[in-house]
Amino acid sequence: MKKVTVYITLKQGVLDPQGKAIQESLNSLGYKEVEEARVGKFIELQVEEGPDLTERVTVMCDKLLANPVIEEYRFDVEEAEAL
Amino acid sequence: MKKVTVYITLKQGVLDPQGKAIQESLNSLGYKEVEEARVGKFIELQVEEGPDLTERVTVMCDKLLANPVIEEYRFDVEEAEAL
Repeated sequence: MKKVTVYITLKQGVLDPQGKAIQESLNSLGYKEVEEARVGKFIELQVEEGPDLTERVTVMCDKLLANPVIEEYRFDVEEAEAL
Repeated sequence: MKKVTVYITLKQGVLDPQGKAIQESLNSLGYKEVEEARVGKFIELQVEEGPDLTERVTVMCDKLLANPVIEEYRFDVEEAEAL
């Protein structure tokens, strides 16, 4: 079993209103040192091992997990911890 | 300038309907090898350096960024890349 973690972020230059709201909220709570905030998501998949894992995960990202128009992604593959 | 990345996940045992939907969608697209999916988010903060950075970020997480009832978080601090 492998653990695949996909990190998805908005592309550079795409407006991130959620990040902007976080930055402004932190500033108004007194954390003036926060100059920018950007939000992304990650998806942890438990995947049974098989051939072409990297290629298959790439297709999963392109087809379902990320929106390639405005988002970019990267992923890591590691051994899943025993449950 | 420091780059602080906060990773927020649902606590173990908290239902993750978004992750479940992703897992079922991947299965129905033919990716039967995906046995579990869990979704989290991360927030990248550009923070001006100052004393007690770690303590201040911990308070930001508890007060605003994470919901400590159902979520847990961890964060990394690294040198921000020059723009």
